[in-house]
Amino acid sequence: MSERRPETLPDKLRYLRDTDIFRDLEQAEVEALGKRAPMQRVPAGTVFFSPEQAAEVLFILKEGQVRIYHLSPEGKALTIAVLEPGTIFGEMALLGQRLHQSYAEALSPCLLCLMSREDVKGMLLSDPRIATRVAEILGQRLISAEQRLSDFAFKNLPQRLASLLLQLARPPKARLFRPASGPPEVRFTHEALAEMVGTYRETATKILNEFRAQGLIELKRGCVVLVDEPGLRVLSELGEGGT
Amino acid sequence: MSERRPETLPDKLRYLRDTDIFRDLEQAEVEALGKRAPMQRVPAGTVFFSPEQAAEVLFILKEGQVRIYHLSPEGKALTIAVLEPGTIFGEMALLGQRLHQSYAEALSPCLLCLMSREDVKGMLLSDPRIATRVAEILGQRLISAEQRLSDFAFKNLPQRLASLLLQLARPPKARLFRPASGPPEVRFTHEALAEMVGTYRETATKILNEFRAQGLIELKRGCVVLVDEPGLRVLSELGEGGT
Repeated sequence: MSERRPETLPDKLRYLRDTDIFRDLEQAEVEALGKRAPMQRVPAGTVFFSPEQAAEVLFILKEGQVRIYHLSPEGKALTIAVLEPGTIFGEMALLGQRLHQSYAEALSPCLLCLMSREDVKGMLLSDPRIATRVAEILGQRLISAEQRLSDFAFKNLPQRLASLLLQLARPPKARLFRPASGPPEVRFTHEALAEMVGTYRETATKILNEFRAQGLIELKRGCVVLVDEPGLRVLSELGEGGT
Repeated sequence: MSERRPETLPDKLRYLRDTDIFRDLEQAEVEALGKRAPMQRVPAGTVFFSPEQAAEVLFILKEGQVRIYHLSPEGKALTIAVLEPGTIFGEMALLGQRLHQSYAEALSPCLLCLMSREDVKGMLLSDPRIATRVAEILGQRLISAEQRLSDFAFKNLPQRLASLLLQLARPPKARLFRPASGPPEVRFTHEALAEMVGTYRETATKILNEFRAQGLIELKRGCVVLVDEPGLRVLSELGEGGT
């Protein structure tokens, strides 16, 4: 019998199989999903979802970072969530809800997998492992949203910013670039950080400069180095300073 | 053959079957779940979950209203969510997460169904309809948390309070007592409303009195009557007034 090289799985299917949500599926199942799910590359800075669109797709973030944000009537942005590879979003669309009021923007070059509401609904109902994983992802986003809600209610701006820096320096690996030895670095611009705590770029820069003066952080281009994590923690947990 | 009266399904099983999450299950499946899931009645005002407890149970709210709240270091409460019958919570526990920092308090006499983390995990994985429904419930809570986050960032206190009143006067039926003809009533005390927008009771009362002076609401004992919903909407959507 002649030796055959193993068939190369098309890129799209490989991506689907790598995505956390689908990790328990058989190859045949992944192939069936892959037939219907187009892939899309979007450059950094692209807003690929806005409230005006009908939310008929579910996105699976394969590569890159995406931020979900809301806009105030005056056009001020508030970043609701920063999503890492492996995250499924637009979940509300598939669940009969809508990503209402939300914009989705690629923070870096992204690779997205798109699925229709019907595909997703079918997929959820066909396999409890997928539905359970979607519930897990939603549960994690809920914890993070409720934590931030609490921060908004109880903490003043410097406390919220300290809390955010500590949060961004924790697990979700893609975010954190911890040199072999040395303090963690948070790679977001001042503007990006400002929009996560609900303030203006100028105000965020002013507070970051104060943190630097206190020896809590160092500022590099596009990057904040947390040189005193315990100090930031004490600051972020100080008593009520909220408005 | 002698006529037999149909067997009375024990209360516990009936409750389980009525709960939205389980509505598609066969009676045998519900019975299997019911054997392991104890029921608990708690009087109004009981805090039945706190951060000190190990979160080894999932609660299904069968009757009554529950609020989930956080506490600031000084003991100021922020209501994160008000849950209605049919809601499953402590979801994070079952998903390898924790209801961390959260307290759960019965706002009215409640009937709760308790399930262990293992039961729930098994249940989710055994039936995609249940897992899908849990994902739906989490998705709805996420939408609401993100909406409130946005309100905290973009709106000042009177706007947030107006927005909250309109929100509380919408769907979740148990909350709303709309007389046959007449404006909707929101049945929460000033203190309860204050803790939902992150302020003190005195401040909430002051703003509610202003709303009354503007003809937007009427105040009855333990109840706010929305006499001018369009007016409240205009107020809640006014340009940026946040801090």
